[in-house]
Amino acid sequence: QHAHELLIKGGTVVNAHHKEVADVYVEDGIIASIGPNIVQVGDEVNIIDATGKYVMPGGIDPHTHLEMDFMETATIDDFFTGQAAALAGGTTMHIDFVIPINGDLSAGFESYVSKAKKSVMDYGFHMAITKWDEAVSKDMEVMVKEHGINSFKFFMAYKGALMINDELLLHGLERCKSLGALAMVHAENGDAVAEGQKRMIDLGITGPEGHALSRPPILEAEATARAIRLAGFVNTPLYVVHVMSIDAMEEIAKAKKSGQRVIGEPVVSGLVLDDSWLWHPDFTTAAKYVMSPPIRKAGHGEVLKAALSAGILQLVGTDHCTFNSTQKALGFDDFRKIPNGVNGIEERMHLIWDTMVETGLISVTDYVRITSTECARIFNIYPQKGAILEGSDADLIILNPNASFRVTSASHHSRSDTNVYEGRTGKGKVEVTISRGRVVWEDDTLKVTPGLGRYIKMKPFSYLFDGIEKADAAYLASLSAPVQRSRASS
Amino acid sequence: QHAHELLIKGGTVVNAHHKEVADVYVEDGIIASIGPNIVQVGDEVNIIDATGKYVMPGGIDPHTHLEMDFMETATIDDFFTGQAAALAGGTTMHIDFVIPINGDLSAGFESYVSKAKKSVMDYGFHMAITKWDEAVSKDMEVMVKEHGINSFKFFMAYKGALMINDELLLHGLERCKSLGALAMVHAENGDAVAEGQKRMIDLGITGPEGHALSRPPILEAEATARAIRLAGFVNTPLYVVHVMSIDAMEEIAKAKKSGQRVIGEPVVSGLVLDDSWLWHPDFTTAAKYVMSPPIRKAGHGEVLKAALSAGILQLVGTDHCTFNSTQKALGFDDFRKIPNGVNGIEERMHLIWDTMVETGLISVTDYVRITSTECARIFNIYPQKGAILEGSDADLIILNPNASFRVTSASHHSRSDTNVYEGRTGKGKVEVTISRGRVVWEDDTLKVTPGLGRYIKMKPFSYLFDGIEKADAAYLASLSAPVQRSRASS
Amino acid sequence: QHAHELLIKGGTVVNAHHKEVADVYVEDGIIASIGPNIVQVGDEVNIIDATGKYVMPGGIDPHTHLEMDFMETATIDDFFTGQAAALAGGTTMHIDFVIPINGDLSAGFESYVSKAKKSVMDYGFHMAITKWDEAVSKDMEVMVKEHGINSFKFFMAYKGALMINDELLLHGLERCKSLGALAMVHAENGDAVAEGQKRMIDLGITGPEGHALSRPPILEAEATARAIRLAGFVNTPLYVVHVMSIDAMEEIAKAKKSGQRVIGEPVVSGLVLDDSWLWHPDFTTAAKYVMSPPIRKAGHGEVLKAALSAGILQLVGTDHCTFNSTQKALGFDDFRKIPNGVNGIEERMHLIWDTMVETGLISVTDYVRITSTECARIFNIYPQKGAILEGSDADLIILNPNASFRVTSASHHSRSDTNVYEGRTGKGKVEVTISRGRVVWEDDTLKVTPGLGRYIKMKPFSYLFDGIEKADAAYLASLSAPVQRSRASS
Amino acid sequence: QHAHELLIKGGTVVNAHHKEVADVYVEDGIIASIGPNIVQVGDEVNIIDATGKYVMPGGIDPHTHLEMDFMETATIDDFFTGQAAALAGGTTMHIDFVIPINGDLSAGFESYVSKAKKSVMDYGFHMAITKWDEAVSKDMEVMVKEHGINSFKFFMAYKGALMINDELLLHGLERCKSLGALAMVHAENGDAVAEGQKRMIDLGITGPEGHALSRPPILEAEATARAIRLAGFVNTPLYVVHVMSIDAMEEIAKAKKSGQRVIGEPVVSGLVLDDSWLWHPDFTTAAKYVMSPPIRKAGHGEVLKAALSAGILQLVGTDHCTFNSTQKALGFDDFRKIPNGVNGIEERMHLIWDTMVETGLISVTDYVRITSTECARIFNIYPQKGAILEGSDADLIILNPNASFRVTSASHHSRSDTNVYEGRTGKGKVEVTISRGRVVWEDDTLKVTPGLGRYIKMKPFSYLFDGIEKADAAYLASLSAPVQRSRASS
Ligand SMILES: [Zn+2]
Ligand SMILES: [Zn+2]
Ligand SMILES: [Zn+2]
Ligand SMILES: [Zn+2]
Ligand SMILES: [Zn+2]
Ligand SMILES: [Zn+2]
Ligand SMILES: [Zn+2]
Ligand SMILES: [Zn+2]
Repeated sequence: QHAHELLIKGGTVVNAHHKEVADVYVEDGIIASIGPNIVQVGDEVNIIDATGKYVMPGGIDPHTHLEMDFMETATIDDFFTGQAAALAGGTTMHIDFVIPINGDLSAGFESYVSKAKKSVMDYGFHMAITKWDEAVSKDMEVMVKEHGINSFKFFMAYKGALMINDELLLHGLERCKSLGALAMVHAENGDAVAEGQKRMIDLGITGPEGHALSRPPILEAEATARAIRLAGFVNTPLYVVHVMSIDAMEEIAKAKKSGQRVIGEPVVSGLVLDDSWLWHPDFTTAAKYVMSPPIRKAGHGEVLKAALSAGILQLVGTDHCTFNSTQKALGFDDFRKIPNGVNGIEERMHLIWDTMVETGLISVTDYVRITSTECARIFNIYPQKGAILEGSDADLIILNPNASFRVTSASHHSRSDTNVYEGRTGKGKVEVTISRGRVVWEDDTLKVTPGLGRYIKMKPFSYLFDGIEKADAAYLASLSAPVQRSRASS
Repeated sequence: QHAHELLIKGGTVVNAHHKEVADVYVEDGIIASIGPNIVQVGDEVNIIDATGKYVMPGGIDPHTHLEMDFMETATIDDFFTGQAAALAGGTTMHIDFVIPINGDLSAGFESYVSKAKKSVMDYGFHMAITKWDEAVSKDMEVMVKEHGINSFKFFMAYKGALMINDELLLHGLERCKSLGALAMVHAENGDAVAEGQKRMIDLGITGPEGHALSRPPILEAEATARAIRLAGFVNTPLYVVHVMSIDAMEEIAKAKKSGQRVIGEPVVSGLVLDDSWLWHPDFTTAAKYVMSPPIRKAGHGEVLKAALSAGILQLVGTDHCTFNSTQKALGFDDFRKIPNGVNGIEERMHLIWDTMVETGLISVTDYVRITSTECARIFNIYPQKGAILEGSDADLIILNPNASFRVTSASHHSRSDTNVYEGRTGKGKVEVTISRGRVVWEDDTLKVTPGLGRYIKMKPFSYLFDGIEKADAAYLASLSAPVQRSRASS
Repeated sequence: QHAHELLIKGGTVVNAHHKEVADVYVEDGIIASIGPNIVQVGDEVNIIDATGKYVMPGGIDPHTHLEMDFMETATIDDFFTGQAAALAGGTTMHIDFVIPINGDLSAGFESYVSKAKKSVMDYGFHMAITKWDEAVSKDMEVMVKEHGINSFKFFMAYKGALMINDELLLHGLERCKSLGALAMVHAENGDAVAEGQKRMIDLGITGPEGHALSRPPILEAEATARAIRLAGFVNTPLYVVHVMSIDAMEEIAKAKKSGQRVIGEPVVSGLVLDDSWLWHPDFTTAAKYVMSPPIRKAGHGEVLKAALSAGILQLVGTDHCTFNSTQKALGFDDFRKIPNGVNGIEERMHLIWDTMVETGLISVTDYVRITSTECARIFNIYPQKGAILEGSDADLIILNPNASFRVTSASHHSRSDTNVYEGRTGKGKVEVTISRGRVVWEDDTLKVTPGLGRYIKMKPFSYLFDGIEKADAAYLASLSAPVQRSRASS
Repeated sequence: QHAHELLIKGGTVVNAHHKEVADVYVEDGIIASIGPNIVQVGDEVNIIDATGKYVMPGGIDPHTHLEMDFMETATIDDFFTGQAAALAGGTTMHIDFVIPINGDLSAGFESYVSKAKKSVMDYGFHMAITKWDEAVSKDMEVMVKEHGINSFKFFMAYKGALMINDELLLHGLERCKSLGALAMVHAENGDAVAEGQKRMIDLGITGPEGHALSRPPILEAEATARAIRLAGFVNTPLYVVHVMSIDAMEEIAKAKKSGQRVIGEPVVSGLVLDDSWLWHPDFTTAAKYVMSPPIRKAGHGEVLKAALSAGILQLVGTDHCTFNSTQKALGFDDFRKIPNGVNGIEERMHLIWDTMVETGLISVTDYVRITSTECARIFNIYPQKGAILEGSDADLIILNPNASFRVTSASHHSRSDTNVYEGRTGKGKVEVTISRGRVVWEDDTLKVTPGLGRYIKMKPFSYLFDGIEKADAAYLASLSAPVQRSRASS
């Protein structure tokens, strides 16, 4: 299909700040105009009728792991299958985590550039920091200034592997601040997790349920509270990935109330699932729910959804990180060896719509905010992404609120042979997905071309950094220090 | 000045969702286009250079009392002087409270229509509900459906005058919900305030300090908590006017975290002043700070600002309600007779900029959000107001962040002979104010024409009502009730 | 049995402040000595071997309604059967609520004096205040100074019947403060409850589940918060009866943390039951769980127990208020007519032991504190009651931690034909109960004599009032008011 | 003075659980009887008239550092002068911290045994843990089982010196749990403190004010939250020493509300001072207030006192750790070298009485609870200490509420040449102090004999450990794990 022009007629066009019935005209992958009754310009314009449907910015998934080497294996979805799944579910961009190679950021970056060559939609990169030395510190600057990375993630868990201690975290936070890059944390107390794992094994609890039992919410809350306070001490914004528990959310809520800039990212599995699956007698079934931090007991999800509706938590990710059942089986005798991760990149948009919009928790504009706009603003690519405004990229979806969806591994687009949402149905269906002006999903059919996905560079100093310097200056001015003193005195 | 066209060049155009350097072109009072390097169309275009300055939506003040009969007198600023002051301070719209006449809504409305004839800028109306009967209930519908009012205010204080009890508040909340109107509350426990006042008088504390002492934060928190819970019980959005204390803010924060839709409005006096003035030995000085709820002890303002920066509180008002020193002197012997109210409509935009943007608490986009956009969204007039988008009203200001402002009653535009911000200076200056395309404030000079201000009708069912019905339905579906039972049993 | 002397040998004697293995010697109903190896004095001493068991102060139930006229009927347990049940369960004193007759306190008091003539154990009285006038205010003084009542209860619910408004509550709190009497509240928002009931009936939900649905936790929290703040405003201690929800507990916790003197009383039904029974298809079964505030959803009880273990909540009552199934059936067609109340006076001690001591939540000394000592201290009868000290009344129990109990209406001592704990079993058994030196329960057999129970007068100004005057004085001294001002100024 | 018998007549005898007017008879250092009108037995009985005064258990200070080597010097008060000061201020026992020598517990213990030989009153020991290996772990058992130590302290600050990391803290907590010993923490994030110190030095802030600025409350709260959660994870009681900030207290309050066993110990300096002194232009004056965590801004003390009154915090210590002005001057050029510590052992009882009892915050029984009884219970020496009961040690004070005290370094008994409470006066005066039956302080005169102080062994498994095993068992029983699974599956 060739058409460079596209006209979407009669839908309710939704932005995070407003919704209205309007037409949307797209030219060369860019939104050219929005308004009532746009008249068709040329012959080749592809016209889509969206009457009675919502035209929204495509979803942006802030948290994915495609083709990642992890726990002696690699995630089974790569930049082709993972993105294909995304598009089929209404997500038109994702931000993946570059993992350094032996701590080397540049090597890691090159590796991901290569992995991403087969991309079928736009994507960006975060980068993990897994050790600390001068080279790492310098490479961070290179990543920010040359390679379009504006966020770095620190692991407070995975002892002996990715985990960093408080001293390094402090250095990392300070470095991020000076570069205008957003610090992200995987927040669990890794020392205690290791103790908890040992405790379970000692108790003979070696199955998937041991995974949840070994790292309870208290350990997530601890690390979340610690990261928040250290970021507050440094005065730099913080992004907490995969907020899974009420306990962690409460820490974020408290910090935000005091004016601190903390972003909390729940993931869809934490919002709509509970940990009872981990007790399933069938190992394959139980193991597919193993991720870290663990999916929590029933009740956490509802509270997280409320916090999300209120803006206490700000956007929804997936932590899409898939392993098939053969891979999961590596941990049959020891849950510590089950590769951690669940799917979600294809299901996120549908599940959030069904459990939050259809239940009245949030408005349609809120939906756009938490699935797309907020992510674009945080990672400083708004309004290129995350909006339906003139000049924005034409990453769009058309959602029919009266249609319904059904999830099953038989029909999903991930390469995984299982799906943690197996059998789930709900209201609302992404009927059309448009990636930079091209219709890539329609009539339940994908039309994608490897290599057409672009890497989106993300500039530092997003809105989260506005005023940080002024606040620092005001702080210094408030100290009434140093006090002048002479040695001779009473 | 005739020019129907206006071109603002080179400024940083700020919306709540984004800022960018761009030109803004205005035609017939409407924003016609925004973009880089807009070329002048005709000869008569008035060109304003905004290089190095911020072009922002004019402020919207959600809370004013112009020409209001109150406490045996009337506020001294009317729709001309109050609005003139507003424009000089960068506020281009306000929403005033219609007070019923002997409880009669229609009579009250007519009276305000008449008062507002001299308007020099756009305005809207809230309406107070001061008694309850069938007529009131019916008139509410008339107001909403015919007169463009979409918010009603209930007083939990002013015992014996405006105060309503819980039964009536419940009826009011339910009525608001059915009409899609936003319920607002003045939240203080009126019974306890009356006790507190008596206590102070009995102690011989008859001066302005007695005002603050008679109605401590605990009474504001009580009523705020009560209104929130009753609104939660009815499941309708709630707007708490003039949040003055940490205690009340905490109640709002708690409710929001749980997903309840509660809007908290701090006012500028509560953010930047403290109650020490009420102890001033000069009565005139002390009395000018008397308002309800009272301005609180030092410390409250900073916490409220933090909550505002975080979105826990959502917008800033003034409760502009001015009395001159002669009027305030009515209460020389008894603080209960001091007319309650302070100025602020002219100072709000400057003070918020200076104390929140210049200190690094918020970004420039946040500034637009809390002074203008959020108000427009809440009262359902966005994006006609509160945005710089094509098609929006050209209510604009140009703020020079490098200039400075100074407040004094000698030069302010209010008719009052005092100013609670007397002598205050700060950074940031509104150099130009544009009302529906006309430059009304420039070179420290007002150019206004009585009668040019329009009444802005506000439609019910704002975004705050999205999903309410679905949530109600989900609630009912969750009850597992009624249970079927037969009489013969066990 | 005649023996005036009693020697309990070898048990672990438990007080709230300490436990030790010791003998206890009782003479004429009074504890004469405690110590290791007390040697038998005379021949007629009744010796009880308590080796391996706990000797503890008998339970004191702060909240019962024996022979109370309520909702067109009367509670089925009177001062004989109710107390017999109490003794069989290890409770040796209770405090019942005198209900005024048409608001007349003296008439109410006389009526209860008469009802209590058949008492088989010691008891005290609280008094309800159901209307307000000069006579009531004066009678309160009579009750305190002449009749040994030191607590008054105010109902914030039961609209149209017992409910009082905030103005009267404020007067009541002030009156209590001046008399040194403890103000108690039944905390639910009665106006909203009435709305909630109407809502349920309108929905066709007329069964017992409608009772719970009509008065959710939010309404309990609202009234609890209100009462606490009004008591704080008056600066007098407050006792919140039957704290049933997390929401209400949180309000108490917040107030206590700030130093306010608030006592929270959970009741055993709220600690160990949940509301699922109200959905039981058998009306008789469902109806027996109807009480106000309602028993809450699963989860509340655990959190309340934690708060109790921490001293956030201070003592456990029952609100024993029994109606048999015929009486409950009055509300078959309308839950509003189901007499409110559950049993518990016989089960409290066992259930608290089993669910709190046996689970490790609290220590044995804590157990004595929450079931007996704290009640005695709050109502100012310690150490006559609530302690095993020389000179204390010999109200004692011997609990065997290795025996077990079983609850069933077939064997309980209440006159009711149902029991809300039907079939429940657990560890720990009260094997012996001693009332003022007489063994009244032993070998599962009661030996009681109507008329032997004494009325225990309770003096005002308990420890909760210590320092109140000083705090008031400090408050006044802190006001820096009145400020001296002359009229000529500025 | 020889008298082995002592009769204190007519005072109000105060225990934590009760107060009453009574006589107290003491024989051979032990309280022999308490009651009204005790008749003098022999001729040699020393009779003290306490009419109109309070007879209370002597204070127990849970937190002192006598003759401690620290920061290149040693505290100037030893077991003679420090205890003399204690007795003059109404404190009759203290618990000091044994510091291991190069991590060796036994060597440290021997050293302190030697230091304590000159003791003039009873004392006990905590022990610090400053490194971790098998020897330390084994020595802990020796200390508990042979040497009467039942508490171990871990430092989360003092990086490079005493600080331990989370892994070691977890091991320490588990070891403490198994031994029935109470884990204590100095809670500040040492990594961040080091950063903060460097930051201040880089800013040229080298004076005492830099001490406070380098380690703000957020770092205390962080470590407090972390220690609490790790203790919760291990399920063992935790004691947080010197709670100095609202932020830390809130963490304790939250944990307690959930049922966790956490003891918070504020110290008198944190309750009654504020950090403004650290800005004093005279170095000697400013430096005397340097302690860690720092004394906080005005406002913290009041909130901590409220929490203490409510039982959220449970007892008051001093962290008495004195250096004279010459020693403090070691840090003239660098606040990091100012020896940390303030006095308080002599002033604690008076200051708490004056600021908490005289202001109405707490009752006299509460006073005994927080200054003596709670400490004795926590460290498992009640009722030998902390009570006026028959058989208790006769460690007593007589406090005259109508007399007044005055603090000055000219007259205090510490060897320090400064006093952080210099010039402070207040109501309430300890007129007599009795140590194990001997009058050691009377008429403002000390009568003490080095060597008469005894070492009080403290047994493990205090009441804080009651139920821990049951709770662990209940937890395990609740896991529904391990799940049985076979390898072959769907
Ligand atoms: Zn992660
Ligand atoms: Zn991840
Ligand atoms: Zn108002
Ligand atoms: Zn107002
Ligand atoms: Zn009740
Ligand atoms: Zn009751
Ligand atoms: Zn320390
Ligand atoms: Zn110390």
